[in-house]
Amino acid sequence: MSILVVGSVALDTIRTPFGEVQEALGGSATYFSVAARFFSEVQLVAVIGRDFPDEHVRFLESRGVDLKGLKQIDGKTFRWEGEYFFDLNDATTIRTELNVFQDFRPAIPEEYRRADFVFLANIDPELQREVLDQVKDPFVVACDTMNYWIRGKQVELKNTLKKVNIFLLNEAEARELAGEANLIKAAKYIHTLGPSVVIIKRGEYGALLFQNEKIFWAPAYPLEMICDPTGAGDSFAGGFMGFLSQVRKIEEGNLRRAIVYGSIMASFNVEDFSVRRMVSLTSAEIENRYREFEHLTSFEKL
Amino acid sequence: MSILVVGSVALDTIRTPFGEVQEALGGSATYFSVAARFFSEVQLVAVIGRDFPDEHVRFLESRGVDLKGLKQIDGKTFRWEGEYFFDLNDATTIRTELNVFQDFRPAIPEEYRRADFVFLANIDPELQREVLDQVKDPFVVACDTMNYWIRGKQVELKNTLKKVNIFLLNEAEARELAGEANLIKAAKYIHTLGPSVVIIKRGEYGALLFQNEKIFWAPAYPLEMICDPTGAGDSFAGGFMGFLSQVRKIEEGNLRRAIVYGSIMASFNVEDFSVRRMVSLTSAEIENRYREFEHLTSFEKL
Repeated sequence: MSILVVGSVALDTIRTPFGEVQEALGGSATYFSVAARFFSEVQLVAVIGRDFPDEHVRFLESRGVDLKGLKQIDGKTFRWEGEYFFDLNDATTIRTELNVFQDFRPAIPEEYRRADFVFLANIDPELQREVLDQVKDPFVVACDTMNYWIRGKQVELKNTLKKVNIFLLNEAEARELAGEANLIKAAKYIHTLGPSVVIIKRGEYGALLFQNEKIFWAPAYPLEMICDPTGAGDSFAGGFMGFLSQVRKIEEGNLRRAIVYGSIMASFNVEDFSVRRMVSLTSAEIENRYREFEHLTSFEKL
Repeated sequence: MSILVVGSVALDTIRTPFGEVQEALGGSATYFSVAARFFSEVQLVAVIGRDFPDEHVRFLESRGVDLKGLKQIDGKTFRWEGEYFFDLNDATTIRTELNVFQDFRPAIPEEYRRADFVFLANIDPELQREVLDQVKDPFVVACDTMNYWIRGKQVELKNTLKKVNIFLLNEAEARELAGEANLIKAAKYIHTLGPSVVIIKRGEYGALLFQNEKIFWAPAYPLEMICDPTGAGDSFAGGFMGFLSQVRKIEEGNLRRAIVYGSIMASFNVEDFSVRRMVSLTSAEIENRYREFEHLTSFEKL
């Protein structure tokens, strides 16, 4: 089973209370791919500039990410610079340089067009829609977004959402899109836009899964040390989609377990800068943490 | 099994986006008692003024709360006026009139002094300590507080905590008391102050139970309609202590289930103003919601 992901591959400069990295490997498609690869084949579509370090390409190759869709063009790679303070919630963006990402138009290679699972990372909803126009009857389309698009391209976003099965967004984005503070009501509204599955991410507070009337309350793994929250949402999506594409059957139990795997991958990712923690991560560690998640929330069987 | 609670009985004037009440029955000891009475006997120690409506006394009597410790003295009853806006998180206090509460010195009736379970609601930590000086070898002492005491009477609070087994506080308070943003580290620090069980309440995000290295992640019940959050924390404490005093054995599973009952009582309480929802609430509804909580968080058995 293969997942097609379209998003960004970037060079991130990040400062947190626990350290700093310069031009480290980042971007939504990167975080997603590396996490999803623990579960599934991944086909990546993104753009990089001539300055993109070879070592990062080799790293993604070494993880077994299919890079036929990674286009290197003239210009500089997309760069983001940000800082987190002690509460480690929102990042303060210091600088965003779109560079080659400015004119990115996703061209889906022929051999990717029959992907069963498609993840549209946080890019312009018009580009997300262009991706969907190129793929042939995917089994599941999942999509992320951000407040920037909710404010600036809401019509286009809603247009894209008509073709989306699973929508992942954070709490503030859900409230903003729905114009509604109550998350249950917000999720109900978002269902009417198309997605039958709505996942509202709440950072350190976990995530909520809405499938019409059914709600699953997923925890986040309590960590004593969060080094760098960058990429948590995309690692979450990677674990989530990776597990789903492994089990294939999209039903309540699998969706719930997929969210737990999403939380697990996010929890590992934030333990170090960039995708560093993923390098040493093993399947046994993932399964151990899955059992810890079970213990974390159970109250009847103890 | 009986629980002794010492706290406030008040008249609240509250505005929320969903309505308004004037001089409604409120106060920490009220919310606690009414919730705990679904599980256990409750002995209430508090003070009211001459203006306190008889109907409220009769209501508490009708719930079977033992009122021998409710002292009516010359002066006006403690009053609080507050308002909540659409996000329903923090209340904006418009007015606090301590009145008879100003000089409250808890006198524990002789027949209450052998209570097995003691709940020190959010009052001056020096008064909390005075209560503990009057009771004889309680089995469990639980305690609440607020940022006001953490800032203004931290030495006294720490002095009280030495004799407390279970400390309930909210997330911001835990961070402030510990001077630490990370909740796991904050809980570890609070353990060193005395309480072997630390419960960090996170409002709509649920609660965390810390028993040294063990963590339980409790959900909050997702409600489509929260009418009035006032008293949620005390109802939580009431359900929690009520269940614990029913089962008596203080071990991990019981503590977890007690927190779920706490969340359940809080979730019912916020469905209406004051203690109105408690009037119609049945044990069957509580048990139904307990099963809903099980479904809400389970992912392995589906």
